[in-house]
Amino acid sequence: MNITRREFTWLIGAGVASQAIPTALGRPEERKVGYCIVGLGRIASHFMPAIVASRNARITGLVSGHRDKAERIAAQYRVPKNAIYDYQHYDEIARNPDIEAMYIALPNGMHAEYTIRAARAGKHVLCEKPMATTVNDSQAMIDACRKANKKLMIAYRCHYEPTNLRAVQLIREGSLGKIQAIESAFGFNIGPGEWRLDKKLAGGGPLMDVGIYSLNACRYLTGEEPAMLSATWSVIDKDGRFKDVEENISWTMKFPSGVVACCNTTYGAPMQGYYRVHGSKGVLQVDEAFSYQGLHLTANLEGKSADSQLTLDEPNTERDPSHFVREADHFAGCIRENKEPKSAGEEGLKDMKLMMEIYDSCKKVA
Amino acid sequence: MNITRREFTWLIGAGVASQAIPTALGRPEERKVGYCIVGLGRIASHFMPAIVASRNARITGLVSGHRDKAERIAAQYRVPKNAIYDYQHYDEIARNPDIEAMYIALPNGMHAEYTIRAARAGKHVLCEKPMATTVNDSQAMIDACRKANKKLMIAYRCHYEPTNLRAVQLIREGSLGKIQAIESAFGFNIGPGEWRLDKKLAGGGPLMDVGIYSLNACRYLTGEEPAMLSATWSVIDKDGRFKDVEENISWTMKFPSGVVACCNTTYGAPMQGYYRVHGSKGVLQVDEAFSYQGLHLTANLEGKSADSQLTLDEPNTERDPSHFVREADHFAGCIRENKEPKSAGEEGLKDMKLMMEIYDSCKKVA
Repeated sequence: MNITRREFTWLIGAGVASQAIPTALGRPEERKVGYCIVGLGRIASHFMPAIVASRNARITGLVSGHRDKAERIAAQYRVPKNAIYDYQHYDEIARNPDIEAMYIALPNGMHAEYTIRAARAGKHVLCEKPMATTVNDSQAMIDACRKANKKLMIAYRCHYEPTNLRAVQLIREGSLGKIQAIESAFGFNIGPGEWRLDKKLAGGGPLMDVGIYSLNACRYLTGEEPAMLSATWSVIDKDGRFKDVEENISWTMKFPSGVVACCNTTYGAPMQGYYRVHGSKGVLQVDEAFSYQGLHLTANLEGKSADSQLTLDEPNTERDPSHFVREADHFAGCIRENKEPKSAGEEGLKDMKLMMEIYDSCKKVA
Repeated sequence: MNITRREFTWLIGAGVASQAIPTALGRPEERKVGYCIVGLGRIASHFMPAIVASRNARITGLVSGHRDKAERIAAQYRVPKNAIYDYQHYDEIARNPDIEAMYIALPNGMHAEYTIRAARAGKHVLCEKPMATTVNDSQAMIDACRKANKKLMIAYRCHYEPTNLRAVQLIREGSLGKIQAIESAFGFNIGPGEWRLDKKLAGGGPLMDVGIYSLNACRYLTGEEPAMLSATWSVIDKDGRFKDVEENISWTMKFPSGVVACCNTTYGAPMQGYYRVHGSKGVLQVDEAFSYQGLHLTANLEGKSADSQLTLDEPNTERDPSHFVREADHFAGCIRENKEPKSAGEEGLKDMKLMMEIYDSCKKVA
């Protein structure tokens, strides 16, 4: 069992930070980190209940272009009306001391601007993935937060999700032997008219949106950065959805150790997220690997009889949206303890650079 | 449901040919096609019982370098002693009228020579996959059989295997909607000293041996030929096994319709063969897709309630090695009826050309 210090930190990062919060900072609510939610869409609707369920975070502000919706949500989460902002008055967050961190849940193309303005307003930033739509924007976000001495974390849920962490742990402790190859896929059949189909807002197609999960998984499963990659893309459905972005991408990668990985992503099929990791001693598969719930790990480990078939199910996530909660708590813990988040801006930048390499490869061989 | 005549023939090819054998050709045993088994290794040990179980084939000769072993097997299958040949006297098969077809189950590097000599001796040839180790050899085999007016079939078992045929049928009849993407993998953890690790005998590593199943599956599942491919390879285990051939290959393909496919193969891990096909209306997976038994098809088809979860298991293969039997019967039927085999030499040549492209791509990006 060879676990480096860095890997160990990776594995238990979320837990440690949140448990180490001193309990003598003031009254319970006040010592919680105040999050302001920017963009009240689908992903925010998953994150807000998680903040409520968290140990050291609370919702102290909302940013929305829809006042009615914002007021309804503010009432639900007991956010004061004067902590509701529209995008014209976004920078006024600077004057609200109850807001310590911004949760950026906007379309990808707006991440950079609202992250940089948040940093300039003196706020920490938890930004959804992909962190931006270009490498330059990603770097600018990192620079802005560093200059303002504020934390930047990218909301890679799976870094805080128990089934994914268990998969990483099984690999690191050698249960699968030497890893040789990985397959992964994630996609869905997109409806027309979504902002995700607009390249300016989305930056790209399914790769930027969901393929990034497979890409990121190959990196955290191996603990390595791809040494080489090659990709191809296509549009099959000439129904108007894919004028701007790709419908399918398939890519293959080689890591410095020699591990090979191949991934598919699509906007044209209900492609349940999964990965399958092949090691010299066995195979591990996580189904629904990138879903909000229902994650399922199966491992077949050679040379073991009774426990050769390992099946892990995540604890009931109906009442416990566990990895959103861990994510919220982790970043709050990093802010309180002045620690670097496990999925900092640099992690998002790595994926961004790789996704651009994947697109470049597609263009080259198209 | 759009099934072209060619596809329909593909789907039912095996059955039709074998059922159409006239019953008035003579006594039952004599109207069966006599197979001579060349190479008495593992794959032959699977094929010989299938011949016995077949309707229109029988074993009428053996070729082996081990006389003792050959005599033991001859006794078991009631092959006359004078129909046992060693490799020095291989060409004497020409004088044995009971031998109509040769089943070439030798290491890959010997396929071409013994196929060409068989054709020159006036025999039909059923040759194991990969058909050879080079494109030139493959073409020479096709040419030799054509010149001798003899049939050449490559033993692609899965073309005659019910679960794979059912997968193809579900795709062709549109149950999955428009196919967008495929993942497939097949490999195993090879022991040291196998001829498969000797490039001269094997032609290459896991790609030639088992990766070919994934490659071939992507072709029969889509019914298309790859328009573009890209690959990478690696050796992880520096334990002496991989001085000659690759340990891992990962490759991605794009088909003319836009379907993308990515595949892995390895000699370094117990990598159960499978494919997962993603269509706009659902997903289909076959596990143990390339195994001798235990094949398992699962499909999740959207928009259907009761039968949205489809699970197919192959009938008990313990007593019924069905696709080996179908393979033996199909080729015998083609010989009797003067029909082109479903998996003729040209099919093997297509894979051979693609595998060489995969190797070329590996060398380019290595």
